[in-house]
Amino acid sequence: MMRIWQNLDQWRERRCAIGSQAVGLVPTMGALHRGHAALIERCRAENQIAAVTIFVNPTQFNDPADLARYPHTLDDDMALLARLGVDDVLTPKASDLYPHGYPFHMEAGEMTGVMEGAHRPGFLQGVMTIVLKLLNLVGPHRAYFGEKDYQQLIAIREMVREFFIPTRIIACPTVRAASGLAESTRNALLSEAGREKAAAIFHTLTTAGSAPEAADTLTAAGFTVDYVEDHWDRRFAAAFLEGVRLIDNVPLGAR
Amino acid sequence: MMRIWQNLDQWRERRCAIGSQAVGLVPTMGALHRGHAALIERCRAENQIAAVTIFVNPTQFNDPADLARYPHTLDDDMALLARLGVDDVLTPKASDLYPHGYPFHMEAGEMTGVMEGAHRPGFLQGVMTIVLKLLNLVGPHRAYFGEKDYQQLIAIREMVREFFIPTRIIACPTVRAASGLAESTRNALLSEAGREKAAAIFHTLTTAGSAPEAADTLTAAGFTVDYVEDHWDRRFAAAFLEGVRLIDNVPLGAR
Repeated sequence: MMRIWQNLDQWRERRCAIGSQAVGLVPTMGALHRGHAALIERCRAENQIAAVTIFVNPTQFNDPADLARYPHTLDDDMALLARLGVDDVLTPKASDLYPHGYPFHMEAGEMTGVMEGAHRPGFLQGVMTIVLKLLNLVGPHRAYFGEKDYQQLIAIREMVREFFIPTRIIACPTVRAASGLAESTRNALLSEAGREKAAAIFHTLTTAGSAPEAADTLTAAGFTVDYVEDHWDRRFAAAFLEGVRLIDNVPLGAR
Repeated sequence: MMRIWQNLDQWRERRCAIGSQAVGLVPTMGALHRGHAALIERCRAENQIAAVTIFVNPTQFNDPADLARYPHTLDDDMALLARLGVDDVLTPKASDLYPHGYPFHMEAGEMTGVMEGAHRPGFLQGVMTIVLKLLNLVGPHRAYFGEKDYQQLIAIREMVREFFIPTRIIACPTVRAASGLAESTRNALLSEAGREKAAAIFHTLTTAGSAPEAADTLTAAGFTVDYVEDHWDRRFAAAFLEGVRLIDNVPLGAR
């Protein structure tokens, strides 16, 4: 039976009862898709208790319009989580996770100067801050993150290492549609034609000879490119289509 | 028998062996005095295991000269800790606490705009960062801090609350010499005459009619005043004497 916790004090009691059993955590902002399902399946396979958080974290949105239209599909999410055999779902309120506003935050250093850090001011700080809160609240042995948000994954892994947090950060490969489009909650904001066209991001990243060439190709195809950059032996892109900001990345070695 | 740990992996094994026994932590920068002894005695009385860390944290020093001349009295410290019945002493190396430098830090928000935050750029961030690391490494049920560093104490308490860290922060009253001078490691840098004169900080804070009046009195007495300010129903001062920066604070209600 899946337990759902909105009240954090009740969750804390439950966490005490779980004791030393291995807890896996998949932190999400809801609007779950096949990418989340892959994280959760692995979490369930590798831990005695599989926990999922659903919380649309306001501090990581630099654009209020992006936050306002972020999809919410709570009933569908709960049905999916139950089907996947999740043990505990936390649906905390913003007033419980940020009871005194946002006085403290985690600074991610040089990472904030590139890609998502540079193009979405406050994004990485907001992600680091909420992940640190959730890791402390849930106390997981393992936490699962997708490679689609690769920079976020690297930053979280480094934060966990820097602060001696006793959680293993597990990276999971990006899940893609048959077209190659990376699964993303924001895909739901695209038209049917937009979703087909958006697969060009993945194909351009895997075939272009260089990052600037990939940027030119995407611009010519009608995308508004935020950046295409190479880091950590991968090629990254962020681009707008139909006013929706999409990101993706591929390993350079595997091309 | 007091155990001394420099190697963090060995400490982690020991921490596992301690299990769920109540651990109290007194984080220090060494050069221990009666103020530390009071924290440690309370820590020992209230917990099954009393742990002390000795680490001069470089990231909280904005002035390299201040760091360079910070007193080190490790042999005396160890003798005192053994006499006080401390169970575990951690003496980690900077290269183990900051193995990758200082890429991440905790930002303490508005607190950084006043007093020590404003006058010592980077100080609060450095303190928050090292305390978060030490809390995660030691996993204490209670951690003890002196009211002499009152702003630091408040900031740590707020950080622990904001990030749901399962440690109770215990505040302990400032320990004073018979003259009224607050015990401080930096007192050792003063001449005998300077130590006598320095007691004027406490007496001025407790008797002056206002913060500006206290600042004028200290300046007239030969101190170089950094600030005198009222916050949280207390009066705070930072002032230089013989080139040594001293801080103190007193409750306003108790005057």
